Amino acid sequence: MLNIGIMGASGYAGEDLVRILLDHPKVQIKAVAAKIDNININKLYPWLNGRLDLECRDMGADEVAEKCDVVFLALPHKVSMQLVPAFLKKKKKVIDLSADFRIKDVCVYEKWYEVKHECPEYIDKAVYGLPEFYREKIKKAELIANPGCYPTSIILGCAPLLKEKAVDAGSIVCDSKSGASGAGRVPGQAPMFIELQKQNSFRPYKVNAHRHMPEIDQEVSFINGSRVEVNFVPHVVPMERGMLSTIYLKLKKQIDDRKAHKLYKDFYKNEYFIRVLEEGVYPDTKNVVRTNFCDIGLKIFPERSLAIVMTAIDNLVKGASGQAVQNMNIMYGFEEKMGL
Amino acid sequence: MLNIGIMGASGYAGEDLVRILLDHPKVQIKAVAAKIDNININKLYPWLNGRLDLECRDMGADEVAEKCDVVFLALPHKVSMQLVPAFLKKKKKVIDLSADFRIKDVCVYEKWYEVKHECPEYIDKAVYGLPEFYREKIKKAELIANPGCYPTSIILGCAPLLKEKAVDAGSIVCDSKSGASGAGRVPGQAPMFIELQKQNSFRPYKVNAHRHMPEIDQEVSFINGSRVEVNFVPHVVPMERGMLSTIYLKLKKQIDDRKAHKLYKDFYKNEYFIRVLEEGVYPDTKNVVRTNFCDIGLKIFPERSLAIVMTAIDNLVKGASGQAVQNMNIMYGFEEKMGL
Amino acid sequence: MLNIGIMGASGYAGEDLVRILLDHPKVQIKAVAAKIDNININKLYPWLNGRLDLECRDMGADEVAEKCDVVFLALPHKVSMQLVPAFLKKKKKVIDLSADFRIKDVCVYEKWYEVKHECPEYIDKAVYGLPEFYREKIKKAELIANPGCYPTSIILGCAPLLKEKAVDAGSIVCDSKSGASGAGRVPGQAPMFIELQKQNSFRPYKVNAHRHMPEIDQEVSFINGSRVEVNFVPHVVPMERGMLSTIYLKLKKQIDDRKAHKLYKDFYKNEYFIRVLEEGVYPDTKNVVRTNFCDIGLKIFPERSLAIVMTAIDNLVKGASGQAVQNMNIMYGFEEKMGL
Amino acid sequence: MLNIGIMGASGYAGEDLVRILLDHPKVQIKAVAAKIDNININKLYPWLNGRLDLECRDMGADEVAEKCDVVFLALPHKVSMQLVPAFLKKKKKVIDLSADFRIKDVCVYEKWYEVKHECPEYIDKAVYGLPEFYREKIKKAELIANPGCYPTSIILGCAPLLKEKAVDAGSIVCDSKSGASGAGRVPGQAPMFIELQKQNSFRPYKVNAHRHMPEIDQEVSFINGSRVEVNFVPHVVPMERGMLSTIYLKLKKQIDDRKAHKLYKDFYKNEYFIRVLEEGVYPDTKNVVRTNFCDIGLKIFPERSLAIVMTAIDNLVKGASGQAVQNMNIMYGFEEKMGL
Repeated sequence: MLNIGIMGASGYAGEDLVRILLDHPKVQIKAVAAKIDNININKLYPWLNGRLDLECRDMGADEVAEKCDVVFLALPHKVSMQLVPAFLKKKKKVIDLSADFRIKDVCVYEKWYEVKHECPEYIDKAVYGLPEFYREKIKKAELIANPGCYPTSIILGCAPLLKEKAVDAGSIVCDSKSGASGAGRVPGQAPMFIELQKQNSFRPYKVNAHRHMPEIDQEVSFINGSRVEVNFVPHVVPMERGMLSTIYLKLKKQIDDRKAHKLYKDFYKNEYFIRVLEEGVYPDTKNVVRTNFCDIGLKIFPERSLAIVMTAIDNLVKGASGQAVQNMNIMYGFEEKMGL
Repeated sequence: MLNIGIMGASGYAGEDLVRILLDHPKVQIKAVAAKIDNININKLYPWLNGRLDLECRDMGADEVAEKCDVVFLALPHKVSMQLVPAFLKKKKKVIDLSADFRIKDVCVYEKWYEVKHECPEYIDKAVYGLPEFYREKIKKAELIANPGCYPTSIILGCAPLLKEKAVDAGSIVCDSKSGASGAGRVPGQAPMFIELQKQNSFRPYKVNAHRHMPEIDQEVSFINGSRVEVNFVPHVVPMERGMLSTIYLKLKKQIDDRKAHKLYKDFYKNEYFIRVLEEGVYPDTKNVVRTNFCDIGLKIFPERSLAIVMTAIDNLVKGASGQAVQNMNIMYGFEEKMGL
Repeated sequence: MLNIGIMGASGYAGEDLVRILLDHPKVQIKAVAAKIDNININKLYPWLNGRLDLECRDMGADEVAEKCDVVFLALPHKVSMQLVPAFLKKKKKVIDLSADFRIKDVCVYEKWYEVKHECPEYIDKAVYGLPEFYREKIKKAELIANPGCYPTSIILGCAPLLKEKAVDAGSIVCDSKSGASGAGRVPGQAPMFIELQKQNSFRPYKVNAHRHMPEIDQEVSFINGSRVEVNFVPHVVPMERGMLSTIYLKLKKQIDDRKAHKLYKDFYKNEYFIRVLEEGVYPDTKNVVRTNFCDIGLKIFPERSLAIVMTAIDNLVKGASGQAVQNMNIMYGFEEKMGL
Repeated sequence: MLNIGIMGASGYAGEDLVRILLDHPKVQIKAVAAKIDNININKLYPWLNGRLDLECRDMGADEVAEKCDVVFLALPHKVSMQLVPAFLKKKKKVIDLSADFRIKDVCVYEKWYEVKHECPEYIDKAVYGLPEFYREKIKKAELIANPGCYPTSIILGCAPLLKEKAVDAGSIVCDSKSGASGAGRVPGQAPMFIELQKQNSFRPYKVNAHRHMPEIDQEVSFINGSRVEVNFVPHVVPMERGMLSTIYLKLKKQIDDRKAHKLYKDFYKNEYFIRVLEEGVYPDTKNVVRTNFCDIGLKIFPERSLAIVMTAIDNLVKGASGQAVQNMNIMYGFEEKMGL
């Protein structure tokens, strides 16, 4: 049994990590830490009553490291970077759900996140944890930079057409919609308020200004082979979970619906968690919530030289905790879908 | 007091017409018709208990015409066109919420709606009921083709930039999101199920294939002065009411945020129901639900030659019944916002 | 025009007071106060954009009194009692939505609310603002103690049977369910989070221990003519608005459904806002949300000597702000339903 | 591997059976039947895409029996009784989620369900599938009458006090609240509408007239040792899943909170799925949704001789499909919580 530590257990992603890892047959949760007063995790999350009996409290890296083989950091950016070196020095593997090690160019990171990076020498050690693209590196990684939810939904949707060199890369428009849990738990709020939802409130925010943009640009550029800058508008949907991205791509190659579907199906043919939908079928977040799947639908308009790609994920699962567990499975040679 | 008839009272738009007109100081609802068995309207909608006492049943145009000065048709397309001539011949004014008289080119109508138009000679008599653009014509109209909800949200968002000749009109992408009531009441379902909502289900549909497209193209082309074909993906949001459109426009003129905001504020300066938001503020459907307002936010990216315009309306109010009442107010010389 | 002040404008009830009074034809909102940094009320509530232009900030009683004829206090208990004397001394009328002047026995108040009452001499001046029972006193009142939401829904449901001396008063069970807005706005939370909702979370709280209990007992005892202690379990429903109370009453008199319905219809025959439903019809919160109505359904089981009475109100309207405006209408001789 | 058939796969309980059994390590779903046109189950439920590949269509008992060792009937009452004999004759075990075999007195069944029972001789063979009370019989059963959701939530809540002979059994009031899925899938509705929810609509229905009443009375009477008739008002909550019952019991024995909690904890000490909460803690449906747990909270008012017991379950899991799988686990000697 692999011993697991979770830091940041009081947030949404931390809670979902507990939910998923609790039923994973090869691991045991040994430590749950959070910046809160001592409380049993099953008091913090009463659904754990009778299922997990662990004290949750503020712990340092040393204490967590002693109990665990691998640690998940479900922490805000900046906090993660202060802990990672200590774990790696003790030969513990780290799966970091924050943004601290995702951006390869430290200047870009520092500009967008408005903090000084405290251990830039670790950035290169980090593997971007998108298994569909970096599986071989993940197998040997000590430090995973687990992708953001929006980037996951957008990169998976764009990649096959980009690889095919079919896209006018300067034209990409990503219109993304996220369930309210994407905003994170409101600090200072009682734990019982964990599943908040705003009624009849649908709104855009951070128009072309969201911190996930440099991450999207970096990975889309890698895939494209040259620099890409996407346009990106995130929106909040009055539902708990789920994320849908509608991506508009100008085509520079002749391609029709049949060819495009074949392209996508071939591209992802070995990927259990990617489901390319039939022609005329579009994704719906309700088919992926509480799962690690990414559903992809697409429609080509040859006369307009336009491709519209739509992807659906659960922002907390494939967009965070599920993907983190998928990475752990790869790192330890477990079946990739184990526990998911 | 103006005597009002409502046909199609059993649908969402019909119900909202009753809600709005009930408190309008200058009108009296005299007939409510629907293709259902006789029932008092206050049994069909128990919230009307003690407030409106009228039998709701299947009625012909003649019967409704006898009781009313003006009739609102909240009916499916094809049904409206079978009733309009009878009302107009009797000198009754008609505000038609269906699509039957919105499209000026009867061939386009017949292609998209897959029916033969039964009275194409009336199309030219119809005025497209978007007061911000056709107020003078509405004043004298006998027949109003009340706009669709998606077209309302998109035309109002695009117009100032289009009029300014600032847009590369071939590039327009409209990503629209509508509350579940936009889908209409499910036929055969009990009236008590009127406020349905799907949880955690967010999905696109009719990708570049929605029947509102020719209507959008027609009006956007009028404003632009030459033919425009927009790209349009509608989505369903798991909330009852509200519609948000995010519109991406490629700019062919130098323009910055300040100039663009001034342009929008000037363009709509006499329009009570259009609220252009400050720089950095974006619309939220919760600020417009149950009102006739359209909130518009925008953000310009000069270095990308891109404008992103976001509009929020209540799909059932400014997108249907409220706009219909606004049209009635204009037709009869009432204060334009009376009862709204 | 009557000049209105609202203190506590940043809470749910305060917001609903603004919403209702804004369209009232006989009043003008002149001051809105809240314990927050200066902000225009239309920035705090963007739905007010273009409709109300007033600075909202922390104000003292003197400043508010200068601008207003009548002031609504939508404040927490204890805060209200510190302001009421100042207003009354300046001959301003006060409608207090807090609990500070509802309980006639100051010892009971101090025990349940765990504070010392600072001006017990004003308690007797206060009229309990339930118009269906205290209309004549309200007409002449200087200070209204506006009822709590749970008490309103329960007292209105019990009264006719109690007056008829048909109830074993020791047996009353009140099982009440309230929309999430009943919990009040979470302090310190951004105003944009105002319409929160918890999904799939339905729970009881303060079982036979809610502060509305002494208020219910007091009024039910007045009606009954002798001391009554009800049993009362409140629950939170994952919806924004609405309150349903299911009341179980042991009967000590023979009575059947027909007689009971006649009793209720007669009892409330002059009350516009009370709608006694037909036999076999039960209330639904969706028929009363955003209205000042109280719908009452009942069912008698003679063989079990049991009456089950069900009432539905909007907790923020008939349960708070709407009833407050109804009281104002009565105090100033306006039509009782004006603006409601 | 045990081969499983599910009849009635197109309803909510059927869908939840598929969801649970899909991940059960000891079984394989071999047949899914429903009264619908042939369709792959992963088209009917797109979340099954890539996970289960079976044709779903109208099948007779013979065809299903050939493929399966055990069959789950998630069918309406009356339909189940027409199929059960065929399965039992072929030595297949049946877990029936309908009401057809729950009521031991066939006259009571026929009166409440308004149909003639077609195979009353099988009623005695059926074991009422509430493991906490009938575990030994379930082990040897050929036919399980899986309990209704309301009865499950009420019986589990009442039992310890009843067994203790502490309750005035004539006084029991059960005020129950169920998520909208309890109403079953609306016939004729598209499968995409499967997760409907009504906003701001909370209402009682079938006041003391619900078909679960004779089932509750039967089991509560067994436990009590003499005839009990409870009072029961069900309500619909605008949420997808979850059921909360608030039960009011008049006490005829002296008992306090501490003793009562000890009584409940002892009573259920070997029951993994029953969680008796600490004093002062009350159940919340959000802690049990998507689980097979029943959370029980209680509060005693000795001076009022009153106990208030509150239970929370997921109406589709412990109230239907989860309990059915728990029964299967017991019948086949699997670990009782396997797959749950």
